Amino acid sequence: MSMLSNPAQKYSAFPQVDLPDRQWPSRRITTPPRWLSTDLRDGNQAIVDPMDSAKKTRFFDLLVEVGLKEIEVGFPSAGETEFDFISGLVRSGRVPDDVLVQVLTQSREDLIRTSFASLEGARAAIVHLYNAVSPAWREIVFGMTPKQVIGVAVAGAKVMRDEAAKRPETDWHFQYSPETFSTAELDISLAVCEAVMDVLQPTPVHPIILNLPATVEAATPNIYADQIEYFIRNLPNRESAVISLHTHNDRGTGVAAAELGLMAGADRVEGCLFGNGERTGNCCLVTMALNLYTQGVNPALDFSDIDRVIETVEYCNELPVHQRHPYGGELVYTAFSGSHQDAIKKGFAARETQNDTGWRVPYLPIDPADLGRNYEAVIRVNSQSGKGGFAWVLEQDQGLKLPKAMQADFSPHVQRLADELGRELTAEDIWQAFRKAYHVKTYPKHFQLLDYEERRSTDGTRLFSGTIAVAGQQQSVSGRGNGTISSVIATLRDSFDLALEIVDYSEHALSTGSDARAAAYVLAALPDGRRVWGCGIDEDVATAGVRAVLSAANGAVTVA
Amino acid sequence: MSMLSNPAQKYSAFPQVDLPDRQWPSRRITTPPRWLSTDLRDGNQAIVDPMDSAKKTRFFDLLVEVGLKEIEVGFPSAGETEFDFISGLVRSGRVPDDVLVQVLTQSREDLIRTSFASLEGARAAIVHLYNAVSPAWREIVFGMTPKQVIGVAVAGAKVMRDEAAKRPETDWHFQYSPETFSTAELDISLAVCEAVMDVLQPTPVHPIILNLPATVEAATPNIYADQIEYFIRNLPNRESAVISLHTHNDRGTGVAAAELGLMAGADRVEGCLFGNGERTGNCCLVTMALNLYTQGVNPALDFSDIDRVIETVEYCNELPVHQRHPYGGELVYTAFSGSHQDAIKKGFAARETQNDTGWRVPYLPIDPADLGRNYEAVIRVNSQSGKGGFAWVLEQDQGLKLPKAMQADFSPHVQRLADELGRELTAEDIWQAFRKAYHVKTYPKHFQLLDYEERRSTDGTRLFSGTIAVAGQQQSVSGRGNGTISSVIATLRDSFDLALEIVDYSEHALSTGSDARAAAYVLAALPDGRRVWGCGIDEDVATAGVRAVLSAANGAVTVA
Repeated sequence: MSMLSNPAQKYSAFPQVDLPDRQWPSRRITTPPRWLSTDLRDGNQAIVDPMDSAKKTRFFDLLVEVGLKEIEVGFPSAGETEFDFISGLVRSGRVPDDVLVQVLTQSREDLIRTSFASLEGARAAIVHLYNAVSPAWREIVFGMTPKQVIGVAVAGAKVMRDEAAKRPETDWHFQYSPETFSTAELDISLAVCEAVMDVLQPTPVHPIILNLPATVEAATPNIYADQIEYFIRNLPNRESAVISLHTHNDRGTGVAAAELGLMAGADRVEGCLFGNGERTGNCCLVTMALNLYTQGVNPALDFSDIDRVIETVEYCNELPVHQRHPYGGELVYTAFSGSHQDAIKKGFAARETQNDTGWRVPYLPIDPADLGRNYEAVIRVNSQSGKGGFAWVLEQDQGLKLPKAMQADFSPHVQRLADELGRELTAEDIWQAFRKAYHVKTYPKHFQLLDYEERRSTDGTRLFSGTIAVAGQQQSVSGRGNGTISSVIATLRDSFDLALEIVDYSEHALSTGSDARAAAYVLAALPDGRRVWGCGIDEDVATAGVRAVLSAANGAVTVA
Repeated sequence: MSMLSNPAQKYSAFPQVDLPDRQWPSRRITTPPRWLSTDLRDGNQAIVDPMDSAKKTRFFDLLVEVGLKEIEVGFPSAGETEFDFISGLVRSGRVPDDVLVQVLTQSREDLIRTSFASLEGARAAIVHLYNAVSPAWREIVFGMTPKQVIGVAVAGAKVMRDEAAKRPETDWHFQYSPETFSTAELDISLAVCEAVMDVLQPTPVHPIILNLPATVEAATPNIYADQIEYFIRNLPNRESAVISLHTHNDRGTGVAAAELGLMAGADRVEGCLFGNGERTGNCCLVTMALNLYTQGVNPALDFSDIDRVIETVEYCNELPVHQRHPYGGELVYTAFSGSHQDAIKKGFAARETQNDTGWRVPYLPIDPADLGRNYEAVIRVNSQSGKGGFAWVLEQDQGLKLPKAMQADFSPHVQRLADELGRELTAEDIWQAFRKAYHVKTYPKHFQLLDYEERRSTDGTRLFSGTIAVAGQQQSVSGRGNGTISSVIATLRDSFDLALEIVDYSEHALSTGSDARAAAYVLAALPDGRRVWGCGIDEDVATAGVRAVLSAANGAVTVA
């Protein structure tokens, strides 16, 4: 690989907008914009296998369900299939009364007429006219002067006006896009928009939609915001226009540009679910909407069952939603890192005791449950995870709440297993490792409890007498102590010459797990200074304790 | 799906920074930052199956090759595998003299010591200390006051200072991250950084790296830029610090935040190739670097063979680079839309004649060739494509340069085929459709040229005499005209009663294609007013013309 040649010979810095008193950096977004989905148009034109009518219909229904009120449904003059779909849709009764369909057309008389024809019988619709206005397009693609480009837009606007007048039964809305706005001279964009407004005579009650596309993202997103603010400030009759944003993502900052553009005063955002669209795609409406949501602004779009949305979008576009796509990706609510897992665990725990309902869980900018995702999926364990991860998994999966010191004891087992397997550990992997490490629910080589009974004497002591298999050999054994645990300790000492001293003991009821009701944990000290943990799980609390002691005993002889 | 409940009860707007005289919106990025790849650390900790040593080594070598000079190689205290890899790497001789390896450690004495131990014998290295400082972490995760959190950082810094002093053979660099900077009070971040600087005593010659993470992206990217500018303005001894950015992408604006942060005065950017990392990932270094590149700034990172980079990254992370990922995605240099294809085609054509080398191709923010991608892959044809697309494909693939009017004639054939197949058309699909439409290189039902000769008379006229198979039946035929074409026209009229009038004729040499050297195109008018196009391809220019006329003749009788 050779170093890239000096790019300064081939590329140049995008010019800044002279706007020293820009206001947008001090503003914030407090209300949701009007949203327009262009999944069926800009999205559809950019996929390898465009949707057929069945897919388009399914996608349209999803958009309606999610709450979109403006939906660009196609480019009627592109071909028969497209025309027929649009024409069928507007007559199908599928379009709710509060939803506006939108169609796109280049500024050519025949195409505009075809576009109106496709909407015959619609209750209401937006016709979206565009032509490209920037220097590269004027000079390379059209060979036109700015005046000629304005002429093309004006001619198209006149056809729109006249076609609409012929069909008074439809409530027509007009949209004009100076395509390539972001790479055009601002004064030319203003001039063409003004000229179109002169023809269409919008009013504050019947405004025109002026859509200002970053057809190709060519600068940092602040420049786009400057362009929008400059445009809005200098547009005469601004109150008769709805300012709409349409950003692309060539520099990976399409969402940022749309957000800063809203701060700059725009009213409306065009985009696609999960950012489909030409090349790097359009602004992602899911991300935009949920960004608002996490700031306490109701986006008026509903992604509370995000997996269902993803399923339809992936099916129709035949493109995956990436594992790391904001809000929707498979991995965005998981944490593999131990410290992250630990913090998230504490955050969830704190929520149970906190007074207010405010969301404040470390590392999670949104409650996954708001999008229909599970808490349980949040934490996954691999070799990069620490104690927090497996402890969470054991708790979620088996109901076990390991004492912190026991987590530290078990941690190297998990670490070693993850290193050995070289892959993510499943809940089952972790459970098996735990069983093996603490001889829980296994048939241990050493002490296996087959049966026992316990008698309380009048002096308050307890007699433990039971059958324990040692390496397969059954033995009847007994011991006396002040309580159950100490009677088992006495049994181990008297019958097996194993001296354990209980350093720590705890138990808790189990809420999950099949027939088990209780878990007990003991930390036992041995005469040689070693300390071993044991765990017992049983239907019965007392028996869980007995098992925990035998578990520690097994640990003591196994390690030794 | 029910509408989302009112988010204002659960989430609140991120507070703005009081910085009315902010300078960053008027600045631009004119030099590349220092880059740090954290692919082997933040990236690696976030993938389902963390890399083994072989993969880590392969990734490290790639990073070096791409031009990274600072590489975070791991978290030495995370486990044995991690420690051994780092320790092996620094001793392996794989680390070039101008590359600094960096390791991450929490601010705990034992972990810091382990981290230094892993770097034993390194020529130079960065030790990166962190602790989280924001309210949610202080209160929920640590149960600490701000003062205690500062104390943790100071204690860690002292251990760093002392461990470094013990190993004077290594050129030590110190980095400190107030983790969760973006959600912390700025004055607390400043206080903890100042306290750490007090311990480590950086100088302009030996500066400390202060890395300011958006551990969780929690606001629009302008807020992060405000935070960075505020921090830089208020940091005493700023010239002894390298200000580093580490953004995440929870709101889809991680690249934007890093760019605006650079405008706000930062010096360094941490990130991953293609934006790997916890949850939604880190800032994508490929996008950041190539964003600079397209503004004429040499990023000092080399992605001129981007497919090889993608191959290694996908192999090591076991995560795909999305089809729409800026600069690298499979679809980002393709255009399916007809008008886009047409404009791109004109842009490439204009480049051949333009005087300067400046890049100005519509819809393509970067020359795909700069990244080792092909022009040919740019244009793909489906039912959303117009004439530009297939014309480009026929030209790239077969060397045919169809006259514009013939493109319009062929267009419905392509459209119909795309609608029928319901999928993207391959170059072969288009070529077969062309052959069928114009009876080119087929065995047409009607006129098939088997053999011919041509004689020039002394009066300048030409006699065409040949063998033509008509529906399989060979016929010897002849005709006289002023030139080859007119003599074939005469033959058709005299022998087959077919009256064609040539309206347009053109031919060109073929640069591609197997043994063919020339293509000819004719537009013929019929007595009934119809017009038919014909195309002939042959090794010989004159024969290509003859074939073109017979192609039109076949069209005339087939259509009729």
